[in-house]
Amino acid sequence: MDRSVYSSPPLSRVVVSGGTHGNELAGVCLVREWLRGDSAPCLERSSFTAQPLLSNPRATEQSVRYVSADLNRCFKTHTLSAPPSPSDPYELVRARELDSLLGPKGSEGAVDFICDLHNTTANMGACLILYSLSDYFCLHILHYLQTRMQSAPVYCVVFDEPPSEAYSLDTIGKRGMALEVGPLPHSLVRADILSQMSEGVKLILDFIDLFNRGTVFPPCEVEVYRKLEGLDFPRDPQSGELSGTVHPERQDRDFRGLTTVLGPWGPLTSS
Amino acid sequence: MDRSVYSSPPLSRVVVSGGTHGNELAGVCLVREWLRGDSAPCLERSSFTAQPLLSNPRATEQSVRYVSADLNRCFKTHTLSAPPSPSDPYELVRARELDSLLGPKGSEGAVDFICDLHNTTANMGACLILYSLSDYFCLHILHYLQTRMQSAPVYCVVFDEPPSEAYSLDTIGKRGMALEVGPLPHSLVRADILSQMSEGVKLILDFIDLFNRGTVFPPCEVEVYRKLEGLDFPRDPQSGELSGTVHPERQDRDFRGLTTVLGPWGPLTSS
Repeated sequence: MDRSVYSSPPLSRVVVSGGTHGNELAGVCLVREWLRGDSAPCLERSSFTAQPLLSNPRATEQSVRYVSADLNRCFKTHTLSAPPSPSDPYELVRARELDSLLGPKGSEGAVDFICDLHNTTANMGACLILYSLSDYFCLHILHYLQTRMQSAPVYCVVFDEPPSEAYSLDTIGKRGMALEVGPLPHSLVRADILSQMSEGVKLILDFIDLFNRGTVFPPCEVEVYRKLEGLDFPRDPQSGELSGTVHPERQDRDFRGLTTVLGPWGPLTSS
Repeated sequence: MDRSVYSSPPLSRVVVSGGTHGNELAGVCLVREWLRGDSAPCLERSSFTAQPLLSNPRATEQSVRYVSADLNRCFKTHTLSAPPSPSDPYELVRARELDSLLGPKGSEGAVDFICDLHNTTANMGACLILYSLSDYFCLHILHYLQTRMQSAPVYCVVFDEPPSEAYSLDTIGKRGMALEVGPLPHSLVRADILSQMSEGVKLILDFIDLFNRGTVFPPCEVEVYRKLEGLDFPRDPQSGELSGTVHPERQDRDFRGLTTVLGPWGPLTSS
């Protein structure tokens, strides 16, 4: 266990982005509210003011995940640095634009922190998505949220990838995370999920402000989830169409262990 | 109250359609299963076999509500009979094709019954949508479902419109109804909603079979909902964007009365 003190300069350039997937509406609604100025004070802290950003305006306008390519898969280093071509999809062009605004990825000029807002139809509660098991700054944020969040349970998924291979928007800042809140149907907004996302953002910005002002966060432990394997749905061999669903006893039980079922056994007799 | 006996010949041509909106997947999944033959016996009864139909294959393929126009608004008599034009949207062309297959609307050649399967993100349970307050055949089906359905509450909404003005697919048969089941996110399928829809279809076909075999259904009463008014969400006056949501205390409380809140009152004193 690494118990060395982790220290870094204060964070001043903080971005909260939404609409990276245009049909995940809680983030879109919050960012639009902030951009209109209605609730901009939500982003102000004594040591910094976070900047709201609508990441994929065209997909947001159409209320679709993306127009031509998944924006949130466009931020690998080699994708960003590939020579531009007139046939590049809209989202790749936008990814390079965001990289020049908020990055460049991996450089000293990059913003200090990006929190990218997502929604999911899965019952994930408020879930932080990180790319490194030794990202102590973000793991402290996780602990801060887990001990304070009132409106939803807080989980964390870590995809352990080198930064150059991490493909999501939040990886072009010096630090970052996705905040994924669900369940929320695509292209729809619910007040309960909006409140959960608002509370998550508030706590993340509160943490950064406390950090900036010299708070020492004591050592702590957190539980995180990692991807071991992906399982596809059963499909019809001819058409490839889904031929099964999540079992009703498993549906909505995200982050819970599988029940072990024993049997059926063969017959038992005293013969 | 009309207590005269309602009588009609047996129904032999019965259609169960899904995918009229291509992103309402419970109906799409059931129809695909029936078309593959996996569970075709579900549609067989002693007096008839119902025909499965995928109403909007192109929208279903793309998992969108529609490609060019809402198919389920294309079945007014004057829409169907307007002179075709090369610029007609895909769905209008498909509506005319369906009308010639299953109708023509209002004619003796039309099929006897169409049950069109829909899903909604709203918490509507299993809801029958009808177009006439004196459609006794369908109101008996409603009563049959309400007294037998195990997996979901059963409601009914009646849009009281003359048949020529009724715009939905199920109105091109001699009789018909939409079966709308929710809550289900668009472009997603859940086992619980699939089961509810299956049970609804099973009971509707059971009813028709009992009717065909001479069962006398005694007089009954049912409760139905009618549209009095439509209320839009609050919107930003400049952009037209949503600036409010359903209140969390109202969310998911479909078909329940509004709570009456009294006050605040002025002060009370004995002066």
